[in-house]
Amino acid sequence: MTVDKEMLAQFLLRMGDNTLVLGHRVSEWCGHAPILEEDIALANTALDLIGQTQLWLGHAADVMGEGKSADDLAFLRDVWDFRNVLLLELPNGDFGQTLMRQFLFDAFQSILLPRLMKSTDAEVAAIAAKASKEAAYHVERSADTVVGLGDGTEESHARMQAALEYLWPYVGEMFASDEVDAAMAAAGIAPDPATLRDEYDALVGKVLAEATLSIPSDGFAHKGGRSGKMHTEHLGHMLTQMQWLQRAYPGNTW
Amino acid sequence: MTVDKEMLAQFLLRMGDNTLVLGHRVSEWCGHAPILEEDIALANTALDLIGQTQLWLGHAADVMGEGKSADDLAFLRDVWDFRNVLLLELPNGDFGQTLMRQFLFDAFQSILLPRLMKSTDAEVAAIAAKASKEAAYHVERSADTVVGLGDGTEESHARMQAALEYLWPYVGEMFASDEVDAAMAAAGIAPDPATLRDEYDALVGKVLAEATLSIPSDGFAHKGGRSGKMHTEHLGHMLTQMQWLQRAYPGNTW
Repeated sequence: MTVDKEMLAQFLLRMGDNTLVLGHRVSEWCGHAPILEEDIALANTALDLIGQTQLWLGHAADVMGEGKSADDLAFLRDVWDFRNVLLLELPNGDFGQTLMRQFLFDAFQSILLPRLMKSTDAEVAAIAAKASKEAAYHVERSADTVVGLGDGTEESHARMQAALEYLWPYVGEMFASDEVDAAMAAAGIAPDPATLRDEYDALVGKVLAEATLSIPSDGFAHKGGRSGKMHTEHLGHMLTQMQWLQRAYPGNTW
Repeated sequence: MTVDKEMLAQFLLRMGDNTLVLGHRVSEWCGHAPILEEDIALANTALDLIGQTQLWLGHAADVMGEGKSADDLAFLRDVWDFRNVLLLELPNGDFGQTLMRQFLFDAFQSILLPRLMKSTDAEVAAIAAKASKEAAYHVERSADTVVGLGDGTEESHARMQAALEYLWPYVGEMFASDEVDAAMAAAGIAPDPATLRDEYDALVGKVLAEATLSIPSDGFAHKGGRSGKMHTEHLGHMLTQMQWLQRAYPGNTW
């Protein structure tokens, strides 16, 4: 069956904006992480995410067929055109909060990307094949850190529990599927994310239990980012910095 | 005698960039000040400073004769073309630090602007006549707050002393005169700021003594902003936000 191009483009923007926005947030740690090894690890994670962004947004631009590039989409859209989940645009907070967020997203990607390798869209399958290797490594690393800090000192435990309580209400949006997801599922391009929730809860539950952390029982979820209905105030502020160069010097290249 | 147009433009940029950069910093408090009356007072101060900016940069643009507007100068120059003193681009810090900075600048303006009312440049004299009334009110207000917080609780005293120690090394730049100032003085356009230092020290010394605060004895001064040799990292970050709208939507008007 053929798929609606606009729907496919929306799906690809969601994939690419997630990695773009998180990639930029993680890059903000460059030169500021608590120890040198973590600084380099975070910079590498950011590079992986930006690399994936290049592929997702490149494919999105092709599908949109307006002659735009991945860079155009990354640097010349305003906040209302971004389709990332709200979780990823939140400010970094402390190191523990950054790693908790990373784990909550890595866990989702580590489940979604292997499914996408069987996509009926050959380009989606190829991007997922590359990205899933990175995601498998990312989730191993962030899970280890969450366990190390959660089951660590009194101070680190308290910070990780606070991070989990702050971030948990943003987890639900990753699974809040809509007509775009339905179209992708019907065309065999991507699974409906709602169908991934049980596997996610099992993975995340296991790691957080090992980290001696308690998942909040309230099921409320902030939404609006992936559907494009609303973003937090933080995304706009982030774009002023992320897009500065292309905005101030339009068309500039290396 | 005639004055070098480039020198005059530099002088006017220094005046206008000082009020622009501080005006933006003060505006960042909008909605965040500790009590409603202070919130409104800070917003009004910011508006006064931005109003003065319009006049100084408007005159600068006229002198430059390149067909630019005050808005062009405010929103389309990059960091290396700004001529404000470094003191004014520093992040706000807490409320006490913001008010200490305000006082240190207000005191300077309250001495400089009355001198500029006798400028041989009629436009400079007219701008100064308007701005000096506002500066007289500003310094009265910020001096009162510095005394109230400095000679206040143990906590407020400690914060104001810390603010003074942090900001004092940025005071000297306001008086670090160069060939531009020499040209302005020779043409009767503006006094050499170095000649204002004694009066400044007397005014500031009196208020800080009343505030039970100790002026650091080290005479070191950070410099480079008004000469255009360097700025702190903070100015560039500030410009990404201050200039966002004109950068993203070039030529847009209300």
